Amino acid sequence: MSKSSTVTVRQSPQGSAAVTGPMVVRADTLVIETSQRVELVDVTSLLAQFVAAAGVQEGVLSVWSLHTTCAVFINEAQQALHEDILRALEQLIDRHTDWKHNDPEHSDCDRCNADAHLRAMLLGHSVTLQVSGAELVLGQWQRVLAAELDGPRTRTLRLQALGVGTPVP
Amino acid sequence: MSKSSTVTVRQSPQGSAAVTGPMVVRADTLVIETSQRVELVDVTSLLAQFVAAAGVQEGVLSVWSLHTTCAVFINEAQQALHEDILRALEQLIDRHTDWKHNDPEHSDCDRCNADAHLRAMLLGHSVTLQVSGAELVLGQWQRVLAAELDGPRTRTLRLQALGVGTPVP
Amino acid sequence: MSKSSTVTVRQSPQGSAAVTGPMVVRADTLVIETSQRVELVDVTSLLAQFVAAAGVQEGVLSVWSLHTTCAVFINEAQQALHEDILRALEQLIDRHTDWKHNDPEHSDCDRCNADAHLRAMLLGHSVTLQVSGAELVLGQWQRVLAAELDGPRTRTLRLQALGVGTPVP
Repeated sequence: MSKSSTVTVRQSPQGSAAVTGPMVVRADTLVIETSQRVELVDVTSLLAQFVAAAGVQEGVLSVWSLHTTCAVFINEAQQALHEDILRALEQLIDRHTDWKHNDPEHSDCDRCNADAHLRAMLLGHSVTLQVSGAELVLGQWQRVLAAELDGPRTRTLRLQALGVGTPVP
Repeated sequence: MSKSSTVTVRQSPQGSAAVTGPMVVRADTLVIETSQRVELVDVTSLLAQFVAAAGVQEGVLSVWSLHTTCAVFINEAQQALHEDILRALEQLIDRHTDWKHNDPEHSDCDRCNADAHLRAMLLGHSVTLQVSGAELVLGQWQRVLAAELDGPRTRTLRLQALGVGTPVP
Repeated sequence: MSKSSTVTVRQSPQGSAAVTGPMVVRADTLVIETSQRVELVDVTSLLAQFVAAAGVQEGVLSVWSLHTTCAVFINEAQQALHEDILRALEQLIDRHTDWKHNDPEHSDCDRCNADAHLRAMLLGHSVTLQVSGAELVLGQWQRVLAAELDGPRTRTLRLQALGVGTPVP
């Protein structure tokens, strides 16, 4: 967090809530195209649009990466910090270690992406967010980031809103 | 786990369950004050109180930190282990690396807290627990810990219980 | 991911969904026996069986390890990669550091398992999966892995399916 952050501050519904009603589930997929081998993509506004249209007033939003080498996690959207995140991932999991997954004897090694698997394992493949007042509950500086770890590729996230809301016709 | 652990052993509902009914969602915020830069706070009993009053019989409890530099995760509540956790975080993410987020050229660097962002990224900002019999489902030694990574500060967790339960009047 | 991976490719329901109805919650425990100190166990097919019988059409499946030193996470099921995962865990958290949790002065140290606690903290103790069409929503290469980090032991996972489905009689 810093005064010069590029994040737009917005208010998120964070108070109390208490509702009863029929359960609504709405789900869809979100496709993103990445352009680098390792890259962070801020998907927060796309998720907010999905939630606004999903008809769930109070509940949760599951964001699930359908890939082993693409992660989803929470952090601030600031370019300098994103460079730090990529550097930290390189320090934690070295790409050029002689990982067995990259060894032609054990696999065809068409991608040699053991590092991507291991980095995704540390970040996690999903987040389950809260929804309140038909909006995502997020702190002032929090953004939902998809981490491409073996791109460039086309990646699919499955979004599922679940909660008390407007019944599906 | 050790015989001399300071954890109080308690039974948690861990058996089977099968219910149908109207969906109930109750949410509120939990504010904690931290006193150190890096510190673990056991919030389990506060969560248990919230769940006991939430009217959700079978469902989930989402615990969400509204901050980028405050994490929520599961571990044992033992002082010696908590010192090990802080030491491991220091080893994994060094505070004094020349992170770009801490560079005055890229940000105002009023806090220089890149390490806090990176450590929270590894621990995660939320947990989604199970609720059964209107109680948290936890293993004998499991506690829900909030990790202050850039304190001391006032921190807010949003708690949301969701499931089959007593309808809201 | 590799052409010679041992993973069986299967189609998972990943499209859109929209339903309203009564909420159903079904939960049960899954017991696994491990045979090594550190070991990965692919529980995906057992979870799929649970979901198929749970009567939840659209919703979520929470998989919760009831232990501090047993984690649950997502990755590919390939033997070479699993050896890499264990190697990465050893590199990230060294077993033989003088952790305080292992010090007889601070605990009885009947297991000296600080490394297991710290490794589980990085992997996480639960995943909350999506269910659609009464099936788990998983990417082509994704499997749910339980990580034994201080075995061999008997481990219990609590499974809870929650969503719109067939009412419990």
